Amino acid sequence: MTLSDRYNSVRKHTEHLCSPLKTEDFVPQPVNFVSPPKWHLAHTTWFFEQFILKEHLPDYTPFDKDFSFLFNSYYNFVGKRVFRADRGNITRPGVQEVFEYRAYVDMHMHILLQLKSEELKELIELGLNHEQQHQELLLTDIKYILGNNPIFPIYDENIEWENQKNAESGFVKIEEGIYEIGFEEEGFSFDNEHGRHKVYLHDFEISKSLVTNSDYLGFINSGGYQDFSYWLDEGWSWVTENKIEAPLYWHKIDGEWHSYTLKGLEKIDADAILTHISFYEASAYAAWKKMRLPTEFEWEIAADKLDWGKRWEWTNSAYLPYPNFKKPEGAIGEYNGKFMINQMVLRGSSCATSPHHSRKSYRNFFHADERWQFNGIRLAK
Amino acid sequence: MTLSDRYNSVRKHTEHLCSPLKTEDFVPQPVNFVSPPKWHLAHTTWFFEQFILKEHLPDYTPFDKDFSFLFNSYYNFVGKRVFRADRGNITRPGVQEVFEYRAYVDMHMHILLQLKSEELKELIELGLNHEQQHQELLLTDIKYILGNNPIFPIYDENIEWENQKNAESGFVKIEEGIYEIGFEEEGFSFDNEHGRHKVYLHDFEISKSLVTNSDYLGFINSGGYQDFSYWLDEGWSWVTENKIEAPLYWHKIDGEWHSYTLKGLEKIDADAILTHISFYEASAYAAWKKMRLPTEFEWEIAADKLDWGKRWEWTNSAYLPYPNFKKPEGAIGEYNGKFMINQMVLRGSSCATSPHHSRKSYRNFFHADERWQFNGIRLAK
Amino acid sequence: MTLSDRYNSVRKHTEHLCSPLKTEDFVPQPVNFVSPPKWHLAHTTWFFEQFILKEHLPDYTPFDKDFSFLFNSYYNFVGKRVFRADRGNITRPGVQEVFEYRAYVDMHMHILLQLKSEELKELIELGLNHEQQHQELLLTDIKYILGNNPIFPIYDENIEWENQKNAESGFVKIEEGIYEIGFEEEGFSFDNEHGRHKVYLHDFEISKSLVTNSDYLGFINSGGYQDFSYWLDEGWSWVTENKIEAPLYWHKIDGEWHSYTLKGLEKIDADAILTHISFYEASAYAAWKKMRLPTEFEWEIAADKLDWGKRWEWTNSAYLPYPNFKKPEGAIGEYNGKFMINQMVLRGSSCATSPHHSRKSYRNFFHADERWQFNGIRLAK
Amino acid sequence: MTLSDRYNSVRKHTEHLCSPLKTEDFVPQPVNFVSPPKWHLAHTTWFFEQFILKEHLPDYTPFDKDFSFLFNSYYNFVGKRVFRADRGNITRPGVQEVFEYRAYVDMHMHILLQLKSEELKELIELGLNHEQQHQELLLTDIKYILGNNPIFPIYDENIEWENQKNAESGFVKIEEGIYEIGFEEEGFSFDNEHGRHKVYLHDFEISKSLVTNSDYLGFINSGGYQDFSYWLDEGWSWVTENKIEAPLYWHKIDGEWHSYTLKGLEKIDADAILTHISFYEASAYAAWKKMRLPTEFEWEIAADKLDWGKRWEWTNSAYLPYPNFKKPEGAIGEYNGKFMINQMVLRGSSCATSPHHSRKSYRNFFHADERWQFNGIRLAK
Repeated sequence: MTLSDRYNSVRKHTEHLCSPLKTEDFVPQPVNFVSPPKWHLAHTTWFFEQFILKEHLPDYTPFDKDFSFLFNSYYNFVGKRVFRADRGNITRPGVQEVFEYRAYVDMHMHILLQLKSEELKELIELGLNHEQQHQELLLTDIKYILGNNPIFPIYDENIEWENQKNAESGFVKIEEGIYEIGFEEEGFSFDNEHGRHKVYLHDFEISKSLVTNSDYLGFINSGGYQDFSYWLDEGWSWVTENKIEAPLYWHKIDGEWHSYTLKGLEKIDADAILTHISFYEASAYAAWKKMRLPTEFEWEIAADKLDWGKRWEWTNSAYLPYPNFKKPEGAIGEYNGKFMINQMVLRGSSCATSPHHSRKSYRNFFHADERWQFNGIRLAK
Repeated sequence: MTLSDRYNSVRKHTEHLCSPLKTEDFVPQPVNFVSPPKWHLAHTTWFFEQFILKEHLPDYTPFDKDFSFLFNSYYNFVGKRVFRADRGNITRPGVQEVFEYRAYVDMHMHILLQLKSEELKELIELGLNHEQQHQELLLTDIKYILGNNPIFPIYDENIEWENQKNAESGFVKIEEGIYEIGFEEEGFSFDNEHGRHKVYLHDFEISKSLVTNSDYLGFINSGGYQDFSYWLDEGWSWVTENKIEAPLYWHKIDGEWHSYTLKGLEKIDADAILTHISFYEASAYAAWKKMRLPTEFEWEIAADKLDWGKRWEWTNSAYLPYPNFKKPEGAIGEYNGKFMINQMVLRGSSCATSPHHSRKSYRNFFHADERWQFNGIRLAK
Repeated sequence: MTLSDRYNSVRKHTEHLCSPLKTEDFVPQPVNFVSPPKWHLAHTTWFFEQFILKEHLPDYTPFDKDFSFLFNSYYNFVGKRVFRADRGNITRPGVQEVFEYRAYVDMHMHILLQLKSEELKELIELGLNHEQQHQELLLTDIKYILGNNPIFPIYDENIEWENQKNAESGFVKIEEGIYEIGFEEEGFSFDNEHGRHKVYLHDFEISKSLVTNSDYLGFINSGGYQDFSYWLDEGWSWVTENKIEAPLYWHKIDGEWHSYTLKGLEKIDADAILTHISFYEASAYAAWKKMRLPTEFEWEIAADKLDWGKRWEWTNSAYLPYPNFKKPEGAIGEYNGKFMINQMVLRGSSCATSPHHSRKSYRNFFHADERWQFNGIRLAK
Repeated sequence: MTLSDRYNSVRKHTEHLCSPLKTEDFVPQPVNFVSPPKWHLAHTTWFFEQFILKEHLPDYTPFDKDFSFLFNSYYNFVGKRVFRADRGNITRPGVQEVFEYRAYVDMHMHILLQLKSEELKELIELGLNHEQQHQELLLTDIKYILGNNPIFPIYDENIEWENQKNAESGFVKIEEGIYEIGFEEEGFSFDNEHGRHKVYLHDFEISKSLVTNSDYLGFINSGGYQDFSYWLDEGWSWVTENKIEAPLYWHKIDGEWHSYTLKGLEKIDADAILTHISFYEASAYAAWKKMRLPTEFEWEIAADKLDWGKRWEWTNSAYLPYPNFKKPEGAIGEYNGKFMINQMVLRGSSCATSPHHSRKSYRNFFHADERWQFNGIRLAK
C-alpha cells in the first residue's frame, strides 16, 4: 500500500465511523473527557494542516484562520486554545463545514504526497497514527453520548464485536530473568515505547483469558462493591462518593442486569468479556480473587503467548518514562511525555481499536477512574 | 382573531425565530440557565400535549412515550425529569423529529379547538402565553450560545432592535397616597399578578428614560467596578470572584468597547439603551448616581407616564406573593409561586418580548446575578 | 444607669457568656457562617478601638498593629481583612492575649468616657448594640461548635430557656387600613429601622403562639420532607441535596427524636417552641397548614398583642430598604445597607438575645437556608 | 536500650515537640492534609490502645469509649471514624484530657511491657515507628498552622536545622547491571519495603548534593514558572490554577524573597538546601536543567555514596507494590498497601525525621502537589 493509499484509507475510515450519526450527535461534550465527534473530525485534520501543510506545502493557504484556535487540543506550543470543557458549546463551524475542511486538507495533502512523500513519511505516519487513536476515541465518545441519553439510541444494530468471547483459558508461566522491553520492530511507534531496555522479571503466571461478565457478576453478587477491604483507598472514596455499584453502562432493570452497547440496551451476555471498568475496579476484583494485575513489563514479555486485542488491559504499572526516553523538540514533544504522571498503563488493544494500529509495545494510559474505553482485566499471580 | 388563528400565529412565530439556525445550534446548553433551542421547541409543545391533549382530547395517543420525561421542565407533579443541566447532551430526538412532534400536536390541537375552544380557552391561553415566554428565552438563549462562540456568528444581520434609543427624558413625579396594584383588565394574566390590592406609596420621582450605554460608560470609566462602596456585599463578591468589569457580551478590543449583538460583534452604540446587566450592577449604578431603583409598585403606578417596553427593568422589589395570592391546584400551581424566593422583580417588557405579551401588571423575575435577558436600568429618587 | 455603667455591664456580659468554655473551644470555625468565640471577643473590642479610640482619644496607641487586620469583619473601608473562612485557623494571638486586648481597650474607653461621654454617646451606643448582637451570635456559634462534636459536650447544664413554652393561644385579627412602620421611640435603633413610613395592610389574622415541636412533628410524620408540593423550588433543592429531614440539631436515636441543646443531648420536649429551622422549612410548614407567614409589616403592627421574644420569627418579607432609608457615610454605612439582597427578615427576638436588646421595630435578617439562630415560626392567614 | 526505654523515649519525644505550643495551636486543621497537633497526640496513643492494650492486656478498660471513634485515622476495619476534614472542629476532649489519655495508656503499656515484651515486640515496634512517622507530620503540620497565620508566629527561635547545607558535590556513576532492592537488614521495616527483589538498572549518574535555594532562584528568575515546556501537563494546570510562583512559605517582600521557617519569617538563605516543593516543581526544575529525577531503585543502589537525610527526595517512581508484596491481614494491612495509587515515592529522610527512623530502603510517598513536608530535589542523568 502506498502512503497515499494508506492516507486515503485512514481518513475515509474516520468518516465511515460517523456515517450512522445525525448532525445533532456531532455537537455535545457531556463530560470533560469526552469530545464532540465534530471536534475529532476537525482536530485530526488540523494536525495535518498545522504540522505538515503549513510547514511543508509552499504557498499553502489555511482553510480558515480561526480553526487553528478552535481545533487545537493540548499543544501549548501552537498557541491559545479553546478550553477543553467548552468544546461542546461551539456550534459553528457546522458539521458540513468541517467535512469541507477535511476535503480541503485532503486535497492539499495529496498534492504534498506527490511532492514529498518520502521526505515527510515519518510525520505523515504520525498524523495517521494520531488519527487512528482518535478513531477509537470517536467510537467511545459516541458510545458515551448515546449511552447517556435516557432513550438509549442505537448506533449500529449489526455491531457484534462488543460481546467478544475468550478463545483461550489457563495460565502461562514465565521464568525469572532479564528481558528486553520496548519497541524494536520496523514500522511506526510512539516516542513513549522507546528506548528499548532491560528489565529483571521474577517468576510469574498470567492468565490467557480476560475476566468475563459472569466472573465479574460473582464479585458484584458477593458484595464486592460494599467491602472496603478489596479497594485501594482512593478507589473506595470513588465508589462511595459516586455510588458506583457496577461497570459503566450497566443498568439493573426489574432485577436483571442490562448494559448499553452500540446496538442499544440489552441483557448482559454472561460469557462476553467484561468491559468499561476503572483501574480501581480492576484492582479490587484482583484482590477479591487473591491475585493481582500484571505489570506492563510482564504483559509485554508474555504477549506472544496470550490471546489479546479484545480489551485494553489495565496493568499495575504507572505511566512513566522508560530509561533514556527522549522528549522530541517542539509541539510534537507534547504528544506523550507531559502526561507521565498519575495515569496507569493499559496494554494490548481493543475491539474498537483501528485496524493496523496495535502492537505489543504500545503503551496506552488513562486515569484510574476512567471507564469509557473498552478496557478489561487480565489476572496475574 | 379567533383562538385558532391566535394559536397558529404564536406557534409559527416560535418556528420563525429558529429559521436562521443551523441544526447544530439547536443542541447545546452552555450553562445551566440556558436551554437548547431544540428543548424550547419541544417543551412548549409538551405543555399542550401534557396539560391539554392528554386530558381533554378523547383517544389522544401521545407522539412518543419518552417525550413526557425528556421535555418536562420543572413540573414535579408530572414525574421524573431530565436534570436541567443535562439538556444539552441529548442529541436524539433530533431537530427534525421535534418539528414533527410540533406538527403532530398542532394537528391534534386544531381538532380540539374545533370541539372545545370555548371550554378550554383559559388553559389554551395559558399554553400560548407560556410559549410566548419561551420565545423570549429562545432568543436570549440563542444569543448566549452564539455570543459565547469565539468566532461570534451572526444570527440575523438585519436586526435593528437591540440598539433602541430613549424617546423621552426627565422625571415623572408621583404624589403620596393609596394606590391599587395588580391585574384588573380583561384578557390573560398570570397568577402572580393577582389579587389586586392597595399599597401606600410615598412621594417619588421616576425617570422617563432608561440608562444608556454612554451613561454607563461614565460609571465604568470613573472606576465603578473597582469601588466597593457602590455595591451590595453579595454584588461585590460577584464582581471580584467573576472578575466582572463590564456588561455581558462587552469586549474591549484594541482599547475600544465592543459588544456582541444578534448582528455580530460591533462597536458600542453610545446612545443605545444599556442592556445585559445584573441587578447588582443596576444597584451599584444607582448608588453611583446617588439615586435608587424604583419598587415594582412605584413602577406600576407610574407606568402610564413612562416610555417602556424596551428593556426588562430591574426593580428593588423581591419577588414575593401579593396579599391573597392563591397557588392554583396541581401542576399549574408550580408555574410561579414556588419561585418566590431570592429573585428580584423586573417590570415592563423588552425588545425581545413577543408581540401582545406585555402589560403593566406583568411580573418578571430573575436572580440578582443573571444578565442574559434584555434588561436595563430606570432610576428613581 | 450611666453610659459608663452600661458599658461595663455589656462588656462583662460577653465575657460571662464565655466562662463555661475551655481554651480549645475559642478556636474553631466549623463553617463559614460561624465565627470562633475568640474572634467575637476580639472583633467587638476592635470596633471600639477602630471607630472610637483611634478617632477620639488623643494619643491613643493601638494595642497591636496587626489586630486591625485580624479582627475586622466586613468593613471594606477599614482595609484588607482576613478571609472569613480562615478565622478558625488563626491560633495566635491566643485567648489570653485577646482578654488582655479587651482590658486594654476597656481601660482607655473609661478614660474617654470621662472626657467625652456626651459627645460620643451615639457612637458608643452603636458599639454596645453591636456587641450585644455579637453576644447572641456568640451563643449560637458556641452551640454550633459543641453541637457538631460527636460527643455532644454540655455548655451549661442549668440553662432552661431553650425549651420555652407558649403563654398564649388563638389568633389576633387586624383591620385593613393605613399603618405606620419603623422606629419612633426614644433610644437606640439601627439605620435599617428608619425612616418611619406608612403602609397599607389588608385584613389579616396572626397567631398569638409559635409553632411547637409537637406541631412540627405532625409535619414530619405526615411526610412533609418528602412532598415537594409544600416547598419553594429552592427549598426543595436544599432538602434533597442536603438530605434534610428534621430541624438542625435533631437526631433520631433508637427511633426517638432527640435534640442537642446547650444542656446536652436530650429527648425532644413536645410542648417546647420549635427552633432551628430554615425559612424554607417555615414556609413549607405554613403551606402544609394551609396558612402563610406574616409580612414584617403585619408583624410590627400586631406586635403589641402578641407573646414574642422567644424565637426570631421568620417573616415572608425580603430584607430591603424602607422608603427614605439613608446609608450613613463611611465605614458605619456598611453596617446594614449592603446586605439588603437575598435575605429574609426575622422579627422579634429570641431566648438568646441579650437583655435590653429588643424592640418591635428591630429587623434581623438571614439567608433562607440558615438555621443556627434560635428562630421559629408564627403563622398568619 | 530496652524496649521499655525505647517506648519512653519515643513517647516523650512527641510531647517534647509540642512544648513550644499554646493550647490554641493544638486545635485547628487548616487544610485536609494537615491534622491538629492534638489529634496526632491522641491518634498515636489510640494506636497502642486499639491494637495492643485492647487485644493483649487482660481486663484493660479503655480510657474513654468515644476515643476509638474520634481518633481513628483511616482504619476502616476499626469502624466508623470522624471525617478527616472535621478534625479541626472537635474542641473536646481538650488538650489536657489528651495528655491524660497518653499517661493512662503509657501506664498500661508499661504493665504490658513487663508481661509480654518479647511476644509483642513486633507490634510495639510498629506502634513506635508509627508514632515516629507522626512526629514528623506533627512538625510539618505545626509549621503549616503557624506559617499560614498572617502574623507568622515563631515556634522555636533556636532551630537551625531548616537551613542545612550540602556537604558534598559532583556526581556518582553507577554501572549497568542487576541489583537487589528492598529491606534486608535486621530491625524494623514497613511492609512496603518487602520483599527483596532484583532489578536491572542501566548506567546512570546521580548528584551527591541536593538543589539549593540559589539553584532554584535561577529557575524562578529565568521564568521557569511561566514556561509550560518544562512542566508536566497536570503540573502546568496546578501552577496556573493556583497561581504558584515559588515554593511553599516563600513570600516576596519589597522585592526580596523571604521564607517562613520555624524560627519565623526570614530572608532566603541562598546556600541552604531548597525545600517545600511539589513533585511538579521538582520535575520542571529537572527538565530546565536538562536532567531528570532518579528512580527509587537508582536512589537505593546509590544511597551509600550519597549525602542524604536532609530532605525527603522526590523520585520519578510511582508508589506501587514490590513483587511479592503481601498485605498483612486485618487493620494493620491498611497501613500501606491501600495507598499504592497516584502517589510518588520519596526516598531518604529529612531534617524533621525522628532520630533512628531512617534507612535506605524506606519508601515515603505523597501526592504530586503536596509541598508541606521537608522535601527536596536530587538530580540524575
